[in-house]
Amino acid sequence: MRENNAISKLVDVFAGLPSIGRKTAQRLTFHLIKQDYDYALNFANSIIDLKKKIVLCKECFNFSELELCPICLSEKRNKKVICVVEDPADIIAIERTNEYFGLYHVLHGTLNPLEGKTPDDLKIKELIARLANVNEVIFALNPSIQGEATSLYISKFLKQLDIKASKIASGVPIGSSLEFTDDATLAKAIEMRIIID
Amino acid sequence: MRENNAISKLVDVFAGLPSIGRKTAQRLTFHLIKQDYDYALNFANSIIDLKKKIVLCKECFNFSELELCPICLSEKRNKKVICVVEDPADIIAIERTNEYFGLYHVLHGTLNPLEGKTPDDLKIKELIARLANVNEVIFALNPSIQGEATSLYISKFLKQLDIKASKIASGVPIGSSLEFTDDATLAKAIEMRIIID
Repeated sequence: MRENNAISKLVDVFAGLPSIGRKTAQRLTFHLIKQDYDYALNFANSIIDLKKKIVLCKECFNFSELELCPICLSEKRNKKVICVVEDPADIIAIERTNEYFGLYHVLHGTLNPLEGKTPDDLKIKELIARLANVNEVIFALNPSIQGEATSLYISKFLKQLDIKASKIASGVPIGSSLEFTDDATLAKAIEMRIIID
Repeated sequence: MRENNAISKLVDVFAGLPSIGRKTAQRLTFHLIKQDYDYALNFANSIIDLKKKIVLCKECFNFSELELCPICLSEKRNKKVICVVEDPADIIAIERTNEYFGLYHVLHGTLNPLEGKTPDDLKIKELIARLANVNEVIFALNPSIQGEATSLYISKFLKQLDIKASKIASGVPIGSSLEFTDDATLAKAIEMRIIID
């Protein structure tokens, strides 16, 4: 049977995206067929625009449409504190908390010898270069061996520069129950227990 | 804070697709930023191609790149049987079974007075016009009140034309357990029980 190539091609593209299976890819494609041409054109243009307009902020390496991202440009942020994250998506998660008002620095990964990720592959030199007027660096890396190794590696430089280093707490998520918390998290929560006085 | 418009625009588009939430939309957008320009161009072109190339088969109203869809064009299909479905996606599901070798007819919906869907809004006249050399019409509509009403409505015409009408069986899905089957399905399965002799 001859296939409808335009359909199977877009299904393939959708199915190649993270967290989209083939059935969802097919549903999305069929949804698009039913929309008008302007809708499809707007979708296609949004994808092209994204690639054309988004660059890395030359200060913190967040995604940005300008040389400097909105956070680095903001007058309201505390420029004495830098929060180090793996990925631009982590910034969005932290911003949603409305609890952090310092700057960010995106490493674009963590140290990972097995995958050949060395300090030169991350934006570490660029972080060090930003520290002149900084009091504290907060590591908000994912709680993994690679995350730990990366914050330890960078912390050494911070010590030399006499800059405070901290990392976000690991523990039982708010609203979850101990019964359903995995062993490693619970062990960490006990280890990191806070004295009540 | 000034937003990155190119990002939020594509997140909005993704989040407008069926079964894509805002978090997934954000993940997909960030995934695209990390791909090269050719990947984005291919994605965008696939969407435009889809809209430009896909039309309705003038015989069965399946999606098609040609005037007639690959199934209507095929020499191997049994032209005496037509399977009536609501949506082109249903054809793909039935084709996957490798159990059906007749033709199809897509109604593009079911009768639904509440939503103002009357016989004129469906491809019913077009189905009737195809029946000259047909022996059997199989209704493979979704098991709903609207599906039932639609097959009953069309069956009346088939009776006048002395054409056999059938509908696919409803019942307990293969591999599922009675315990987790919903009441309506189980009731239908009992009603439609098959005599063992």
